[in-house]
Amino acid sequence: MFQLHPQLEKDSFLIRETSLCEIRLINNALFPWVILVPKHNEIKEFLDLSPQDQQTLWQDITHISKKMQQHYNPDKLNVAMLGNMVPQLHIHIIARFKEDTAWPNPIWGNDSKPYTKKEKNNIISKLSTVLQ
Amino acid sequence: MFQLHPQLEKDSFLIRETSLCEIRLINNALFPWVILVPKHNEIKEFLDLSPQDQQTLWQDITHISKKMQQHYNPDKLNVAMLGNMVPQLHIHIIARFKEDTAWPNPIWGNDSKPYTKKEKNNIISKLSTVLQ
Repeated sequence: MFQLHPQLEKDSFLIRETSLCEIRLINNALFPWVILVPKHNEIKEFLDLSPQDQQTLWQDITHISKKMQQHYNPDKLNVAMLGNMVPQLHIHIIARFKEDTAWPNPIWGNDSKPYTKKEKNNIISKLSTVLQ
Repeated sequence: MFQLHPQLEKDSFLIRETSLCEIRLINNALFPWVILVPKHNEIKEFLDLSPQDQQTLWQDITHISKKMQQHYNPDKLNVAMLGNMVPQLHIHIIARFKEDTAWPNPIWGNDSKPYTKKEKNNIISKLSTVLQ
């Protein structure tokens, strides 16, 4: 039974699932920012996944990156596996704009603004279609 | 003819090449930090590569990540495609330690300390074997 890390649970909302991953929206209205979380416990590095799951992960990253690019038309996509703070493997995919509040710096540790309940419902509904 | 971006040329040293990428050491002695640069001009996003090159890139990322993990035994690998500052596609692979000067934050924008000439020669020689 997959257990999402409590910090990821607190910081994000489920959009949809692939066979391997939960696709979740980070609760920060300043950036279009999703994470992919492989549904395996005790996995810290992508290298800890089986070769087949690594392949599926790359396909998921590619697919969701493409959909984010098509939908948001960002100046740059940021794709990253860090995990220094939350040890459960998760992959960030973020649509970045020259006008966003952190540009050109990375977004981690920058400003955060939670979605309102209405905004959250709208974007989850939208992304659950867009990120199919 | 592939043209490396002048900023990447300035910030890093060539370790070796794969069929697709230059593998380069970032000139910062505080972190074991390499970048992979696909040898195609005018490529900003990994999605701009052909599907076959995307596959090769993922294989290169996986291979070099594994070798970095085996050699450095880090607390965490950081793997990231950002490119907000330098638009030529490059992928960071960094061995992170709980004792490093930036932990647990991302390393971009943190302290930097160039290698001495001797250190540089030693690490390039070492990594050109380790990262085969």
